Amino acid sequence: MPPLSSSFSAGLEGVIAAQTAISSVDGGKGELVIRGFRVEELAPHASFEETDFLLWHDALPDAAALDRFRAELAAQRTLEGHTLELLKAAAARSVHPMDALRMACASLVAASVPDRIASARQDALRLVATFPTIVAAYDRLSHGLEPVEPRENLSHAANFLCMLRGTQAPAAFVQALDTYWNTVVDHGLNASTFTARVIVSTESDVISAVTGAVGALKGPLHGGAPGPALELVFEIESADRAERILRRRLERGERLMGFGHRVYRTRDPRADVLGAAAERLFERAGDRGLYELARAVEACALRLLREHKPDRALQTNVEFYTALVLHGIEFSPELFTPAFACGRVAGWTAHCLEQLASNRLFRPQSIYVGARDRRWVPAHERGSSAT
Amino acid sequence: MPPLSSSFSAGLEGVIAAQTAISSVDGGKGELVIRGFRVEELAPHASFEETDFLLWHDALPDAAALDRFRAELAAQRTLEGHTLELLKAAAARSVHPMDALRMACASLVAASVPDRIASARQDALRLVATFPTIVAAYDRLSHGLEPVEPRENLSHAANFLCMLRGTQAPAAFVQALDTYWNTVVDHGLNASTFTARVIVSTESDVISAVTGAVGALKGPLHGGAPGPALELVFEIESADRAERILRRRLERGERLMGFGHRVYRTRDPRADVLGAAAERLFERAGDRGLYELARAVEACALRLLREHKPDRALQTNVEFYTALVLHGIEFSPELFTPAFACGRVAGWTAHCLEQLASNRLFRPQSIYVGARDRRWVPAHERGSSAT
Repeated sequence: MPPLSSSFSAGLEGVIAAQTAISSVDGGKGELVIRGFRVEELAPHASFEETDFLLWHDALPDAAALDRFRAELAAQRTLEGHTLELLKAAAARSVHPMDALRMACASLVAASVPDRIASARQDALRLVATFPTIVAAYDRLSHGLEPVEPRENLSHAANFLCMLRGTQAPAAFVQALDTYWNTVVDHGLNASTFTARVIVSTESDVISAVTGAVGALKGPLHGGAPGPALELVFEIESADRAERILRRRLERGERLMGFGHRVYRTRDPRADVLGAAAERLFERAGDRGLYELARAVEACALRLLREHKPDRALQTNVEFYTALVLHGIEFSPELFTPAFACGRVAGWTAHCLEQLASNRLFRPQSIYVGARDRRWVPAHERGSSAT
Repeated sequence: MPPLSSSFSAGLEGVIAAQTAISSVDGGKGELVIRGFRVEELAPHASFEETDFLLWHDALPDAAALDRFRAELAAQRTLEGHTLELLKAAAARSVHPMDALRMACASLVAASVPDRIASARQDALRLVATFPTIVAAYDRLSHGLEPVEPRENLSHAANFLCMLRGTQAPAAFVQALDTYWNTVVDHGLNASTFTARVIVSTESDVISAVTGAVGALKGPLHGGAPGPALELVFEIESADRAERILRRRLERGERLMGFGHRVYRTRDPRADVLGAAAERLFERAGDRGLYELARAVEACALRLLREHKPDRALQTNVEFYTALVLHGIEFSPELFTPAFACGRVAGWTAHCLEQLASNRLFRPQSIYVGARDRRWVPAHERGSSAT
């Protein structure tokens, strides 16, 4: 065992916990690379199926392999009866959509072929295939509607939209959703991805690992919940109110949701990709009035931020444009994080497969800072307890 | 952000990931401290309820507080209908008992009081209270039996045994189970505890965090699955066969399950505690013949290990005595890991509460070792794919 390092970095900040060939985040350069492609090179062009294949196999499929892969995924979409029953019970209790996703994900039955890697691949396929079915079923059940059966003849994105809406969505919606999922499919060792790798490093199954990741994604510190960026736009209501409301927020020292990022010091490249996707989407379909309002709010916010925080160079972040795109394809804010999970699950499973391919158990150390040398005293001889 | 350390330690080996006042493992000294008590001071004396209270409050309860705490826990034991239905579906599919525990744990509904710490405490109570009910219900359903309702007037351990058996267990069994749970209640930053802390560090809920921990515990690299140690004893069958069988294994270079430990270089203090508990148990109840066989196997194994590996100082480990104690209280091997989880859940929840009390998001870094500068090519122009 190597000697303990003398210093302790809370939250493992700055500590390297894994090598990966899946994605690279360079905050200083404003660069996100996914399996060798810059996100702006990959995300606008690929279907989600191509991106998922790329994440798992480190190469894009040719046309025949892509057809086979689409069919394999499509064949795995249907939920078992016990998962649907669980979602119905959850809807009756009005549980949080991410709790419902955790419940349903945990209820998937892991593959049990003898080979560990083959099992992991089967579980990964099942997870990516079923997440949209789970999320759409719960969304409909929460609104008192019956779930819509998945359709094998639709693409991953088109089928998700169809299960949510009950009818097929415009092609512009499908393309926007593909681009959105591609953009958020992986992002280095974020807390949920790290969780999945830690769990699977015990050689547990990929269903268990991804269930843990869903739990981590739920946390408000994780990111991936772009609702508040949109709430700001809704609150402003019309462009002429933007400056007054934004100025008041900044003067109170409040953060403007949708601007700035913890890691990216220049620009978040995902914001560019989704900004362009939003523009393309709203040119063809959706609520143009809201789109124009959002762009006016953005312009005003950037101007005021330059004025108030000239040293910070705050940019519009991925959450602002995510909210815009997802609202544009008619998702309600409570769908935002579950829809994010439907994309990120491809990244989680890719990390599980990578971890298993050259595994080492995650088993860090802790420093003990507690009491010592306590002696047992029976309950009736103890002093009155503080708690 | 501090600069990245230039070195990378696979599995975070030797890296300090947290400060904790819950437990301290000193492998060199062979010492395990739990909230200031050496395990040999705490485990033989405490009821599991006292240990759980100690873990959560850093103090033992006085008699009145202990009564209140027992009642609070006992009142939370009953499962909701949807969890029971899920366990029935899982039993019909013969899923692995740890998968059933993951499913049922994930299906618990998180508290939703506004205060985050109060919610976390409620979730912790619910988890510790329900784990035995889940495990016992699934064990019975797997054997074609109806689950037995929990009884509020029994202790945590007595009630678990009663739910498993359908009738009350001998007092010696209850005492042995209390000691077993106390012994394994916490053990530093093992992979499952670390998982729970990473998940809750996003400010997600404790149900989600513990669900992740259950998934990690399932993995064969985690430990806590003492079945194989007992299989060796069963295989040997009678004391006069021990030397021949053990010698053959050692000559083939095989590991003797139940001897040696990754962390403890001298002795594992938990082995002493559980060795004494086994002796007390088998003096009063259970299969004395098997106990004597196990002790004969142990004596023979230690003698042969000194002969074959004189430089290693291999000792009987916690798994050997765990298997003996759990077999002594009539648990089948498939119950061993779920029963371990019923004890360790007190540690997991204590770590979640500690993490939330002074939280910092776990967000380590990764090194990118993958491709770069790939360019998009449409599917029909790609070369034939390898996969």
